Amino acid sequence: KLFIDTGKDEVFSLIQALNIRVTLTPVLPTRALRSDLTIFMNEWRPMFSRFHVIIVKDPDLKEELKIPEGFNLDVYGKPDIDQVVGSSTSILFSGYSCRYFGYLVSRKKYIISVDDDCLPARDPKGFLVDAVAQHISNLTNPATPFFFNTLYDPYAEGADFVRGYPFSLRGGVKCALSCGLWLNLADHDAPTQALKARQRNSRYVDAVMTVPARSLIPISGINIAFEREAVGPALVPALKLAGEGKCRWETMEDIWSGLCVKIVCDHLGLGVKTGLPYIWRTDRGDPIASLKKEWEGVKLMEDVIPFFQSVRLPREATTVEECIIEVANAVKERLGSMDPVFARAAKAMLDWVKLWQSVGSSS
Amino acid sequence: KLFIDTGKDEVFSLIQALNIRVTLTPVLPTRALRSDLTIFMNEWRPMFSRFHVIIVKDPDLKEELKIPEGFNLDVYGKPDIDQVVGSSTSILFSGYSCRYFGYLVSRKKYIISVDDDCLPARDPKGFLVDAVAQHISNLTNPATPFFFNTLYDPYAEGADFVRGYPFSLRGGVKCALSCGLWLNLADHDAPTQALKARQRNSRYVDAVMTVPARSLIPISGINIAFEREAVGPALVPALKLAGEGKCRWETMEDIWSGLCVKIVCDHLGLGVKTGLPYIWRTDRGDPIASLKKEWEGVKLMEDVIPFFQSVRLPREATTVEECIIEVANAVKERLGSMDPVFARAAKAMLDWVKLWQSVGSSS
Repeated sequence: KLFIDTGKDEVFSLIQALNIRVTLTPVLPTRALRSDLTIFMNEWRPMFSRFHVIIVKDPDLKEELKIPEGFNLDVYGKPDIDQVVGSSTSILFSGYSCRYFGYLVSRKKYIISVDDDCLPARDPKGFLVDAVAQHISNLTNPATPFFFNTLYDPYAEGADFVRGYPFSLRGGVKCALSCGLWLNLADHDAPTQALKARQRNSRYVDAVMTVPARSLIPISGINIAFEREAVGPALVPALKLAGEGKCRWETMEDIWSGLCVKIVCDHLGLGVKTGLPYIWRTDRGDPIASLKKEWEGVKLMEDVIPFFQSVRLPREATTVEECIIEVANAVKERLGSMDPVFARAAKAMLDWVKLWQSVGSSS
Repeated sequence: KLFIDTGKDEVFSLIQALNIRVTLTPVLPTRALRSDLTIFMNEWRPMFSRFHVIIVKDPDLKEELKIPEGFNLDVYGKPDIDQVVGSSTSILFSGYSCRYFGYLVSRKKYIISVDDDCLPARDPKGFLVDAVAQHISNLTNPATPFFFNTLYDPYAEGADFVRGYPFSLRGGVKCALSCGLWLNLADHDAPTQALKARQRNSRYVDAVMTVPARSLIPISGINIAFEREAVGPALVPALKLAGEGKCRWETMEDIWSGLCVKIVCDHLGLGVKTGLPYIWRTDRGDPIASLKKEWEGVKLMEDVIPFFQSVRLPREATTVEECIIEVANAVKERLGSMDPVFARAAKAMLDWVKLWQSVGSSS
């Protein structure tokens, strides 16, 4: 602004060329299911050490956490959760859901969340992938949900919109959520993992794309980033499976919140991206054992998807909070009688909005 | 069938393991705007020589075609077009639209179409890309338009559906159209090409994906393949710009037919894929000169897109031909008064359906 006031074009061009940006303040709420985070934190040090890190300890985990030195770090555990959230809520911050407590207490603009069985990946040339930088790039560049661009992210270096892409849509919209992918162990469900126990994902697809409006997507919580004020309340720990375990393929909490985020983004005209960055996901757990628990996720999705494909939010719902309340009411009404898990999810969503308004909404 | 009749499971399993398939019979209607096709045909020989090739000569081109030996080939020119189509039609098979004559006269199951300024591309490891094989693979594997798979084509080797993908949708639907991409010269419009004359696309994205249902896409005719009986009549040479030239960025005929195909596929429950295979696209033409012709494509798209985004086909339209007639009538009604180009397009679409029914529909 100071330079614009000089009124001199050459000064203004120079400043523009420098491409100065408002300092970004991402936060990384990793969560701890394992007590020894030494390898995890040291491997991520090049990317994490510049930012504020939140570690939320699974309330079910008894051991002390082992965390190496040298980070700007806040650790939260059961006592903190009890103090902030109290006991008058249906929300359980256990297992993978402990991360949502980090979303709630963070005050940063961008939040990046990574499962603790993930390490930085390498691209096909062998370079370490800076997942934080890529997520921030995804979030700070516009998304294009209203028309598909065949050459992927039109804002990427060396890319553009292709012939036929309407000019009126080339400005794009704000990107609220960035979903990264996984090399090595892909994010399969329990049956697929059991069937293809040895399959590894080695395909590095060098692309970021906007998920088109009104297209639903199985958003995984393993490697995501979002703008807190834009969609924070929609990332809600609501769907807790009866047999939920401590392996990713035993959970659906992120799939559910992903469906909520997507329909809210579609309604509010926000974008969701998927693709880069990759993380390297290591093995953990026994899919056959998980499958024997009679994993109910498979069955539930067959009711969940038609619901989310058909639910319509009223025009009056103009904030994320209002949207989630609408979705919760619709869940209660249309899914509530099918399975008690849905009534509990609806209740948790309403509680989450209240919690967010009292704890999470301030900057 | 013979082996199933044996009633022996072990024989049946063995045959299944052999994965025998019905012989594929793709046809490749390239079209000739340039008279000397020697380099073009020789470079494509490894991929084209096994299949039936149709070359349609631009009626405006005066010189004799130069085509090397060794292909199973049919060449069509102005006299053939006049004989088959006659003079009682609004369809002009000139310039890039001459390819549609090839679509009309082919009797093969799959049609692959490549612009004559394209050569086979190489993948990042330096291997020649077999665009024909990749297109056939895209068309013979199911498409998944009703839910997004984050790890791209779930049917690709080493890939699968990710956690949260509903099992009831994993069977997919028939893929009717496969859109390939371009290395080197991307498919930009005239203004972008003029602005970024030196920009080249070097990003090889190793992915095939289904374009989600109800998401529109700027389909380019440079490098596409389709199943003739499934969507042939929807690939219609209808939108002829007043200032249409012999450079790709001066045309919109493929963008229009692509929008038609996509809404018809969405209506009929068919899939459209985009991504691999890449072709290598070489330079031709002067974008600045093209731009000076006051290219009307930019302006037209702003009316065209909202129309295609909102047009709904009636449930009674159950064939591609019926769908195109419905779209043509809607074009006439809703766009006809805006610009004479739309009334002409509607007329050409109706004529095309008649032509397809009398000439193109037999197998």
